[in-house]
Amino acid sequence: MKQLGLYCSRCSAKLPFRYQDMKCSCGGTLLVDYDLERLSKTFTKEALQTRYPSMWRYNELLPVSNPDCIITLGEGWTPLVRLQNWELKLPIKQLWIKREEQNPTGSFKSRGFSVAVSLLKEAGATKAAVPSNGNAAGALAAYASHAGIKASVFIPLDCPPLIVEECPLYGADTFLVDGLIHDAAAIIEAGKQEQGWVNVGTLKEPGRVEGKKTMGLELAEQLGWTFPDVIIYPTGGGSGIIGMWKAYHELKALGFVDGPMPRFVCVQEEGCQPIVDGMLPQAAMDLAGGASRPSPTGMRVPQPPDLPLILSIVKQSGGTALALSKSQIADATRTLGTQGISSSPEGSATWAGLIELCDNGWLRATDSVVLFNTSHAMKYAQLESICSVPRIRSYADYKALGY
Amino acid sequence: MKQLGLYCSRCSAKLPFRYQDMKCSCGGTLLVDYDLERLSKTFTKEALQTRYPSMWRYNELLPVSNPDCIITLGEGWTPLVRLQNWELKLPIKQLWIKREEQNPTGSFKSRGFSVAVSLLKEAGATKAAVPSNGNAAGALAAYASHAGIKASVFIPLDCPPLIVEECPLYGADTFLVDGLIHDAAAIIEAGKQEQGWVNVGTLKEPGRVEGKKTMGLELAEQLGWTFPDVIIYPTGGGSGIIGMWKAYHELKALGFVDGPMPRFVCVQEEGCQPIVDGMLPQAAMDLAGGASRPSPTGMRVPQPPDLPLILSIVKQSGGTALALSKSQIADATRTLGTQGISSSPEGSATWAGLIELCDNGWLRATDSVVLFNTSHAMKYAQLESICSVPRIRSYADYKALGY
Repeated sequence: MKQLGLYCSRCSAKLPFRYQDMKCSCGGTLLVDYDLERLSKTFTKEALQTRYPSMWRYNELLPVSNPDCIITLGEGWTPLVRLQNWELKLPIKQLWIKREEQNPTGSFKSRGFSVAVSLLKEAGATKAAVPSNGNAAGALAAYASHAGIKASVFIPLDCPPLIVEECPLYGADTFLVDGLIHDAAAIIEAGKQEQGWVNVGTLKEPGRVEGKKTMGLELAEQLGWTFPDVIIYPTGGGSGIIGMWKAYHELKALGFVDGPMPRFVCVQEEGCQPIVDGMLPQAAMDLAGGASRPSPTGMRVPQPPDLPLILSIVKQSGGTALALSKSQIADATRTLGTQGISSSPEGSATWAGLIELCDNGWLRATDSVVLFNTSHAMKYAQLESICSVPRIRSYADYKALGY
Repeated sequence: MKQLGLYCSRCSAKLPFRYQDMKCSCGGTLLVDYDLERLSKTFTKEALQTRYPSMWRYNELLPVSNPDCIITLGEGWTPLVRLQNWELKLPIKQLWIKREEQNPTGSFKSRGFSVAVSLLKEAGATKAAVPSNGNAAGALAAYASHAGIKASVFIPLDCPPLIVEECPLYGADTFLVDGLIHDAAAIIEAGKQEQGWVNVGTLKEPGRVEGKKTMGLELAEQLGWTFPDVIIYPTGGGSGIIGMWKAYHELKALGFVDGPMPRFVCVQEEGCQPIVDGMLPQAAMDLAGGASRPSPTGMRVPQPPDLPLILSIVKQSGGTALALSKSQIADATRTLGTQGISSSPEGSATWAGLIELCDNGWLRATDSVVLFNTSHAMKYAQLESICSVPRIRSYADYKALGY
């Protein structure tokens, strides 16, 4: 049995472990607390060397206590590919891309839901629901069905039809919501008690941040237990940034890595850029944003559940945030394509961000930079919808369908 | 520099290594010959333990001599997932699925083209062409563009539009052919000399079989240096079966694994089943096949380039071949979906084959069985074509486009 607790990322309060309701009374987000001093005696770099290449190799730093409850579909230990041709063309030292699309559900969301669903299994939960721009819904659907847990997923209706379609394939009750991701979240909150759902939305439970944390752990191990100088990451709800930041603090506490933390760069699409706006001084912020209609990608999260936490991480790390235009993102998809990489709009935005930060001199000649490609290009094809998924606006509409 | 040669899989003739034209004068297929006795001194199980989880960990058993020519996008070391729930329901001992869709191009084809394109790079070739039902075209396109080699790909026009569309994304000259895969191959043969293409079609060059071989190497290593009892594999041109068979002979020669070879089961779709027909006694064969119209999948190869070699492997291994119906394959996609696995029709056919071999008693209660999921379900969505790829019937049509 692991000795787990929770701590508040805002007020530092300590609480006993629980698998849902991650809001502290101060309004901050609760994160999982490990006894790192005790762990450091047996959890060593040497012990890792011969472990199987899965994100569960970091088992000691993951919150599932009963190994029989681990729900795995082959997630994590995705390749880190070096783009040497471009290192010669750009004013940086090293360039890497982390191929998160090679996860079991075709996106980085597999990681968080492997842990979240394992925790549900351990807790004996039988029903879970998530609001999602698509890939989180597919990941919950896949892991929940593997675990024998009923999943209900709520997706804005303009999201990519192929990603939507995967959810009923995995056996989830799937609904298209006439609204954005927070409208989908509101439906779940409205029905949570009546339906018996555990809400596994961003920062609502501890597993997704812990699962995303493994991206940071892997990256450090794949780079020979060093940190890159800069991580460019497509940011929506922010659990990836929070998770990787947490990973690096834990690795430092364990004595695995020395030296400065990476600078975190959040990329978003113009028109839905709360993190970019949040980094600006107040006067500038009032003028920014809102001009263009953002695309239905994982970056389109107008109201991240803990914006202050994301902003504090980006600022503390010496990072920055950038909003890219649709056409910059589309150009990036083509550029990555001709390097043999099929990148989602989110992954492409990291490339577009890289180019902009090279052009404006923010990146340094000594920087090693890591991009995250979070899904495949083809899953985003905007084709006529092929799915007969019901469309709803409210929890009342949901009920009217007979649930 | 590696001491490589070639040997004929039919007449056993030995030849110097070359990177194209794999047909022996006897009509057999030439395969790569390694000095296994010399290798066994340094290539050990222990040496592998701390190597990076990529298919290139088996570098000594791959034919690329110059490490600077290796074209890698993060291929291989895909997860092997155990399906324990189904072990309880089916009359077998162990059930595993190898998740080949988690390769960089979303299919098992990444492996073969990583090696084939590396060999092209090493040889200084600048243009390559392939006939393909889709996934091989995408893989050539991706690896060639990463290597700075020009790819031309020829795909039957009813193949899945999303897979087709990936090829121009990767920068390949892409053509839809009014015909089947051998018609596409004929166009390449007709234009090969004039266009300067290396034909990297199935068994035309040594890299693809060697790359596919790594599926067998990995499987043995992932199972603790043992062989499974049965491998169920979706078979079109047969390079995967040939590659895995070769892998297991090499592992036995190296002393890595003892015991009997796995029984190889080839699955195909009804209506295009040359391997299934080839396994029948002649009288039965004349009556078989041709009744239904086969789907445009990787299994639709009416004329495998070396059918006798595939048949001899299946027979020697004590295996079998099965043709599944469209509806059996569609049912299997749903069954795998509700286990959290998005499977291509080819991957689904392995599940359908499993069920049939359980029902008819061919599988034994002591058998450990491995299925191969070769690609994602969603890439096969039969939507209105979104690509403006030119359609051709002949090399003359190709020329008329101005090439």
